[in-house]
Formats: sequence, structure tokens, C-alpha cells
Amino acid sequence: MIKLNESVIRRASVLEDATLSDIKAGLNNGTIVIPANSRRNMKRPCAIGKGMKTKVNANLGLSPGHSGIANELNKLKVAEEFGADTVMDLSTGPLLNKLRQIVLKESTVPVGTVPVYEIACMSKNKIASMKESDFTDVLWKQAAEGVDFFTVHSGITLELVKYAEKNPRIMNIVSRGGALIASWMRANNKENPFLTRFDEVIKLCGKYSVTLSLGDSLRPGSILDATDRLQLGELIVLGEQQQKAFKSGVQVMIEGPGHVPLDQIVANVQLQKSICHGAPFYVLGPLVTDAAPGYDHITGAIGGAIAAAHGADYLCYVTPAEHVRLPEAEDVKQGVMASKIAAHAADIVKGIPSAIKRDREISEARAKRDWKKQFALALDPVTPMKSREASRPAGTEEDVCTMCSEYCSIKVTEESLNEAKGGGQEAAGRGQKARRKRPLRRRKRVVRDKR
Amino acid sequence: MIKLNESVIRRASVLEDATLSDIKAGLNNGTIVIPANSRRNMKRPCAIGKGMKTKVNANLGLSPGHSGIANELNKLKVAEEFGADTVMDLSTGPLLNKLRQIVLKESTVPVGTVPVYEIACMSKNKIASMKESDFTDVLWKQAAEGVDFFTVHSGITLELVKYAEKNPRIMNIVSRGGALIASWMRANNKENPFLTRFDEVIKLCGKYSVTLSLGDSLRPGSILDATDRLQLGELIVLGEQQQKAFKSGVQVMIEGPGHVPLDQIVANVQLQKSICHGAPFYVLGPLVTDAAPGYDHITGAIGGAIAAAHGADYLCYVTPAEHVRLPEAEDVKQGVMASKIAAHAADIVKGIPSAIKRDREISEARAKRDWKKQFALALDPVTPMKSREASRPAGTEEDVCTMCSEYCSIKVTEESLNEAKGGGQEAAGRGQKARRKRPLRRRKRVVRDKR
Repeated sequence: MIKLNESVIRRASVLEDATLSDIKAGLNNGTIVIPANSRRNMKRPCAIGKGMKTKVNANLGLSPGHSGIANELNKLKVAEEFGADTVMDLSTGPLLNKLRQIVLKESTVPVGTVPVYEIACMSKNKIASMKESDFTDVLWKQAAEGVDFFTVHSGITLELVKYAEKNPRIMNIVSRGGALIASWMRANNKENPFLTRFDEVIKLCGKYSVTLSLGDSLRPGSILDATDRLQLGELIVLGEQQQKAFKSGVQVMIEGPGHVPLDQIVANVQLQKSICHGAPFYVLGPLVTDAAPGYDHITGAIGGAIAAAHGADYLCYVTPAEHVRLPEAEDVKQGVMASKIAAHAADIVKGIPSAIKRDREISEARAKRDWKKQFALALDPVTPMKSREASRPAGTEEDVCTMCSEYCSIKVTEESLNEAKGGGQEAAGRGQKARRKRPLRRRKRVVRDKR
Repeated sequence: MIKLNESVIRRASVLEDATLSDIKAGLNNGTIVIPANSRRNMKRPCAIGKGMKTKVNANLGLSPGHSGIANELNKLKVAEEFGADTVMDLSTGPLLNKLRQIVLKESTVPVGTVPVYEIACMSKNKIASMKESDFTDVLWKQAAEGVDFFTVHSGITLELVKYAEKNPRIMNIVSRGGALIASWMRANNKENPFLTRFDEVIKLCGKYSVTLSLGDSLRPGSILDATDRLQLGELIVLGEQQQKAFKSGVQVMIEGPGHVPLDQIVANVQLQKSICHGAPFYVLGPLVTDAAPGYDHITGAIGGAIAAAHGADYLCYVTPAEHVRLPEAEDVKQGVMASKIAAHAADIVKGIPSAIKRDREISEARAKRDWKKQFALALDPVTPMKSREASRPAGTEEDVCTMCSEYCSIKVTEESLNEAKGGGQEAAGRGQKARRKRPLRRRKRVVRDKR
């Protein structure tokens, strides 16, 4: 049985269409997790898994020599503002402990980390020199600090590392944590410490109620490497570890790809659900092409929508900066929004009642040309409102938009139906009257046809 | 048999992985079209349909009182620059004839129009007063001017218009052309002139080799209206018209939705292919949610990728301005890129050899951290290059990016493999030497950790 504070479950449930007992049933059969460290008391915990709304994670984090604490805290603010359900602090470099402690204090949502980054930084980029006990020591430390969930790359085995050397992919290991652990394993010719010490990992997660997010070190980094022997070999190990940890009362989710061609995404979700006993699936993208750097929030939204529609539970955002640079706050906004759209499109077909209700209501507002209500119901209310303000129709066209102006299909149809109902002349008269009533302000904003 | 200039077919074929005889076979069985008016001699015609790369259309056009000719010509330039395969001039307002004539001269790609807009503008927004012959007269005129393809809303019948009145949807008619024709039909209580005069439409298309794009007046404008009686009723009419026109030697494609939930997209493509005898399918989006104004390039990319992966041939772009305002040049760029990404992701799973080759090559370049080659192979080479330039790593990290810096998974793995191969000391020595060779320029650009 999963031990979680009742008030945490209750607070997580307010986001959902599901009942408290639905959520508890999911927690107890391992299909739902609520990442919430027992030492942290966040405002907005969330439930991730079967029957829940699809959740979105935003990554933050310093790189050595790039960004700063204020900058990353601003990203946290932006991520929360646009609706990220969780954040992960993926910092490396000398300030990583400091930032993590501030993020744990400031964030109103669950905070995740990838503790092997701290291990790598402790060793000054010589991770090979670290002792096995260092790996679990960092987990104990971060768990005690209040981290709600962490990625543990326990599924990459020495056998898989050696297999990868003999059977090279286009993109070998693209998981940063996975690459670091594999380099330790190669240098020491030893098994993965997170795997050999998995019982200790379970113990510390149990003690602080940390949710395990089992990492996919061998996720494909090119769509040509997707769904290969290495990826599946690791998934099988993760499925066994998931079962072991869950039976010991630890919440577990599974991380997934990555770069996957569009027609392999459904199979990837089905495989994870089958091999990992229905545990929540946390995907990175998936990115449906390798060829769109600068736009990977879009490649990720395509893959994420398909994955979530077929059962993935949790989308790690991808920003336009992916494969190019450390993201800025604007990238964070774009990344969160792209993933929120994918999640929402999936929730509609997952049958989440409030998702389809939102689309019904915004469409009804659109049919009435009720702009205020349309924007209030939009996934991002501010951006489209500002865009409309900058190109606002004038006078009798105030209720439409500058795309079609007086030829607005909705208005043309409405007026035509009114005329048909009321008789041509009378309706036309009413139309004129109604038009005269509308104020003529904002006419000056109109840009007239230029030659 | 389709009559097309041999040199047009040859020029269209250079874009494709298919042979000239593949394309001719497709033209002759109606599964491929090459929109090319016999009076226009464009630089870059393209083939749309089965076995061809998925094509992308960008819409341009004035609204009455908004934008100007120079502005729209700039959008044409941007659309072509980012890879639009065709453009449609959807202008309304007093300058529409003038702009169309310039676009026909300036565009290097096929140009489409929606002639009913001109009919509506001729009538000063009283389309009901127009004669039936006006509808075909405008087609004759635009065909003679050189328009390569036009949308003709011949599938909306009086019966369907009346059915729509009695069985209201959330969003009645959202096609601008469809709404205009329906209002004419309602006011005159007469059948659709494009339907009653379809023989004349065929005749004029045959004379000037105009490709017919049969419009979907009754496409859903909310995902809650998708795949309904009205949409299918019109599709059945279009399927009959497609067959008739094709048998008379006219090239035909079919326009499709619109707002469609993610799980109905595949059915929509299959229905169109079945009912319309394999004719090319030209979709608008589809948008997988109604709730993301400001981001409809993304909702459209999700739907477009799924549609194209399952057989749609041609994507009409949707810009971030959709449902909000007339797009600006930046919206055009974002819209084209989102659709290009969707098309490319679909081409990979359609088995287009050059699509998968591109992903292989960019991944190989990424594995080597060959940034120049990565950007050269990117769907948009400039945007990610500029983004990287603005956040460039320094010194020994010049070959990675600021996301991971020295913890770059690819570099960590490469160095670890080199050390394992060459023995720790020797490899480390080589690494040092290699590092010293790299110039230290650009160090000044680095933003150091603050605080």
C-alpha cells in the first residue's frame, strides 16, 4: 500500500474529474502516482496516471557557466503561469545545490531532479572516480531535502552497455544521466550502482515518500534508433524494478522516448503499459522527426499528443531550444504551451469530461463571436487576446476578426438565417439598426489598403 | 486522360523520389494532380497525391480595410522561402483583382483562389443579388488569368443547407465560401449554382487546365461537429463530382476538415479516399482542439501529421493568427514551418526515401556534433543557427551546446568509449591535446553563473 498524506491526495483530486476513491484505487494498483515528498508541503500536488488528466512537466536548470539563479527562478514562474503541472531541476555546475533548495521552496508544484547530475558535478567531471556508495548517498541527501520525484537510471545494465558498443546506433546514448552512468560502468567494469543498490533506493524512497521515475538511459536519440533491442532491453529491466519497488510501497513511473517515428508511438505506449504493469508513462516528446531543430516543441507536441491519446500519462515538455541551446523564458512558455495543447487534445479522446466541455464552451463562444469568453476559455488567454488587440476590426466589424472582416462565415450565416426567418426586408432593417448601435471607436486603428 | 505539358510534369518530378512514369500513372488514375494552368508558366510546379511528398499550402490575402499589396507580397516571399509548395490568394475587398494578378506573376509555385470571394465582393456584400451566371463567369475570368487551381464549393446542396437549419451544429457553416453560397441559396431558394452548372465548371477547367479543388463548405468548425451527417452528406456529393470531372479530363482534389478530434482523423482520411476514388486529399489542419487560439499552427501540425501519415496528400497551413486576426509575415513563417514539420514527419512513415535519409544524415551530423551540417539539413536552417549563436558555448565546450555543456551525453559517451578503447591514460592525453587545439574565441559571450 502506498502511504500518502490524505490531504495531499485530496488536493491533487481537485484538478481531476475523477473521485477521491478512483484516485486511491489507482494509487493502490500502481496505475497512478502523486509525487509528494513527505517533507515538502506544496500547494498544488497532482495525480499522474490512468484516468487522470495528462500532465505536463517543464525542465529548468543551470548549465556550468550559463544562466543564473534569478533566470532559472523566472523560468519556474513562467512554467507555472502557463500551466506546467510539475517542474524538474536539471541543473549541473557549481550552483546546483543552491538552486535546487530555492526551487523546492518556491515551487507550488512537485519538483523532480536527476540526482546523477549532482554526482557528476561532485566529481568535477570525473564520474568514473566516484564510489558506488556516492550514488545512493546523493539520493538520501536529495530525498531528505524534499525532492518529490527523481529520475534513477537503474535499468541500464553492464550487458546493455557492452551490447551498445558492439552494435552501434546512429546516436549511441543520448540520455545525459545514462551517458554518465554508462561511462562509470565502462571505466570501472562494474554493474550500474543504481541497479546493484536498488533495495537501498527503494528504502530511501519509502522513507521520504519520493516517487521513483525510472529513467530510460537507452532511449533513442534518432528516429532510426527507435524501438530497438537496447531500448526494449532496458524497458524489461525497468518493468521488473517497477514491480519490486511498487510491492515495497514506493510510487513508480517509467520514463520513455525520445525520438520515435509517428507510426511506432502507439506500439511504444502499449509495450510500456504491458511490460511495466500499467505504471504511469512519462514520455519525452516523443519527437516525430530529427530534422526540425528550432521547432522541437512542435515535433514533440505531435508525438506527445499521439502518445497521450493512446495512454501516455505525463509529457515532459520540449522547447524550441532543444538540440540547440539552454532555453530562455520564452522557450519555456512555448514548450509548456505546446505540451499543454498535446495533453489537452489527448484528454479529449481519453474521455476526460472537462476537456471536451472546454472545447464545447469555447466553440459556443466562438459561434456567438463572444471574444471575452473565447479568450477566458483558451489554454493561453493572454497571447491570442494581445494578438487580436494589435489587429482589431473597426466599426460594424467589431464583433468579427480581421481575417475575414465582413465576410466572416459565422456572421454571414447568422445574418442569412435571420433574414430567412424574419423575411428579407424586416431582417435587413433590424440588421441596420443593430449595426448602428455598435460604437465606432477604434476605427483609427485600422490599416487601410495600401497599394 | 489528363492533358498536361510534358515539361510541367518533368519539373514537378524533380521534387519527388518517384519516377516520371509513376507520376504519369497517378495523373491518369486520378490519384495525383499537378496544378498548372496552361496559361501560366511557373518555375516550380508540384505533384500532389499518392506516392508524392506531402505538400504544404500557405494562404495569403487582403481583408477589406486590412493589410496591403506590399504586405501580402512579402508574405508570398516568406511562404516560398520557408518551403510552401503552393499558395492560395484568399483576398476579399476592393484590391483583390489587382493582388491576384500580381501574385500570379510573382509566385514561383502554383497559385490557387476561392473565386466565390470575388463574386461576393462584386456584389458589395449582397451576394444574394447575384445571378447564377455570375458564378461561372468569375471562374472563366480567373481561369483565363492563369489561376492554377480553385476551390469550388459545388458539394453543398439546398437539401444539406435546409438540413443544417433544422439540425443545428455548434458551429454552423465555418467555410467562408460555403457560408456565402449557402446564404445565396437560402435567399433565392435555389440549388447551388456551382452544382447546377458543374458541366460548365468542368468545361472551363478543361480549357485552361485548372485543377479543381472541391471545397468542403460543411467542414466542422468545432471538434464536436466533426464527422457528422452534414460533412458526410457533402463528401458523397463531392465523390460523385470528382468522378465526373476526372472522367472529363479535369484534375481534381478534395478539400477536407477542419476541426477533428485526434481519434477521428484516420477515419476521415479513409472515408475521403474511399468515397472520392483515391483523389488527392487536401486538409485544413485538422485542428485537434478548439481551445488553443494563438497556437493553431500547433493544433494543426498535430492533426496534419496524423492525417498525412494515414494518406492525406496536401496540408493547408494554419497560422498562430487563426481564429484571431489576419496573419502577419511572422505568422506565415510559423504556419509554414509547422505544416512542413507535419508533412515531413508523415513522409517518413509514408516511406518517402529522401525523408528518412534526411533524418539519418542530420542524426549522423548530430552524433558528430557537426553543427554546420546539422543546420544545413534542418527544415529551417537559419532559425536554430541564430538561436545557437545567441547562446554559444566557449573554449573546450565549443563543440557542444549550452543545454548540457561539458555534460553533453554524446561527448561524454564518445570520450568514455575512446578511453575504454585506448586505455585510460593515453586516451586522456589525446583528449587534452585535442582540446588545446580548439580556439578559445567567443569566450566573452558566455554568461557566467550569477549570484
